[in-house]
Amino acid sequence: MNFSKALNILLAAALLVVVGIYSTRGTTAGDTRNNIAMSAKTATDIIHERSSIRSYTDTPLTEEQLETLVRAGMAAPSAMNKQPWQFIIVDDREKLDAFGDALQTSRMAKLAPAAIIVCGDLSKAGEGWLQQYWIQDVSAASQNILLAATDMGLGAVWTSVYPAPERMEVVSGILGLPEHIVPFNIIPVGYPDGEARPMDKWKPENVRRNGWE
Amino acid sequence: MNFSKALNILLAAALLVVVGIYSTRGTTAGDTRNNIAMSAKTATDIIHERSSIRSYTDTPLTEEQLETLVRAGMAAPSAMNKQPWQFIIVDDREKLDAFGDALQTSRMAKLAPAAIIVCGDLSKAGEGWLQQYWIQDVSAASQNILLAATDMGLGAVWTSVYPAPERMEVVSGILGLPEHIVPFNIIPVGYPDGEARPMDKWKPENVRRNGWE
Repeated sequence: MNFSKALNILLAAALLVVVGIYSTRGTTAGDTRNNIAMSAKTATDIIHERSSIRSYTDTPLTEEQLETLVRAGMAAPSAMNKQPWQFIIVDDREKLDAFGDALQTSRMAKLAPAAIIVCGDLSKAGEGWLQQYWIQDVSAASQNILLAATDMGLGAVWTSVYPAPERMEVVSGILGLPEHIVPFNIIPVGYPDGEARPMDKWKPENVRRNGWE
Repeated sequence: MNFSKALNILLAAALLVVVGIYSTRGTTAGDTRNNIAMSAKTATDIIHERSSIRSYTDTPLTEEQLETLVRAGMAAPSAMNKQPWQFIIVDDREKLDAFGDALQTSRMAKLAPAAIIVCGDLSKAGEGWLQQYWIQDVSAASQNILLAATDMGLGAVWTSVYPAPERMEVVSGILGLPEHIVPFNIIPVGYPDGEARPMDKWKPENVRRNGWE
């Protein structure tokens, strides 16, 4: 009886400790992700599990999911902290279909409930040759969006627009972009339809140590 | 007595369930991160907690940490899956100091135990205007490296080399790079010396819905 009581107390204590330890995982930045349930995986897991998802279910995304994607984009580093970007959330069916119809490379926009169009804002970019950094900055922002989508159990794909002049013209036309806003890519996003198959792209020959030779 | 036994069994079962649930967290891609202990945060947390770290302790990085950084870089998406990159790990003190002495923008390399130099490999890039995609591809790879560093409790900063001709010449000289390898940035990395202060860069005015207006 005493042993049984002691065991009760021990088990209850162990349960509290285990719940206590694990309940702090992944909760430190709750406000930046709108309290959406994220995967239980680490950032490094997500980096390796991300893959290009080109087919989606009909399920629409919530406002919170869409904002979480864009917030992740804006958290990217940028040269001289210029943040030379604009993010256009598109969930208008006609516009998504228009992207897919006009651009073979973005045809999966027709299947997606939404897309993020990442744009460079040249009015915020540097002068002269420094202006070119906007391309690096919006690329980092785009990668953040893909990783945040994976983290939320969504699937997305980076379909490029810049620097193809005809694609840029199409997207600028559909969205009514002013001159200083450069459409960089279209990222269709939704719940994956089918299994993701991340590629293993590890190639030891792509690593060198302390120099070329 | 019966109640106490039943409680024992219930508590033991609950403990097993809780341990079972949580022990699967963050373990699905263990081999891609060399069994290094990662932060208990989600990818979205890490995206928001990453900041540019410019000062480091003397503690050297392990081979596993360096490889994990480079593996994260290689997991990035690339246009037409060209993977047009090379990653040069530098932990030679003289070379790190040479970067810091020659390049004001990379001066923190003198404080860092290591740096990853992300390079474009033009021999693997596309033809004609498609060649320009290497810039977007290595930018995504660089962002992955910064996030993996944050995930490991390390600090890093993206210091740009491309497209500044004089910086590119310096880095190519120090590393002995051939013509087709373009040094893109220098990412000094180490254990942070001091507190990280992530910036909140959320700006609602940088988001539009379904078009510019």
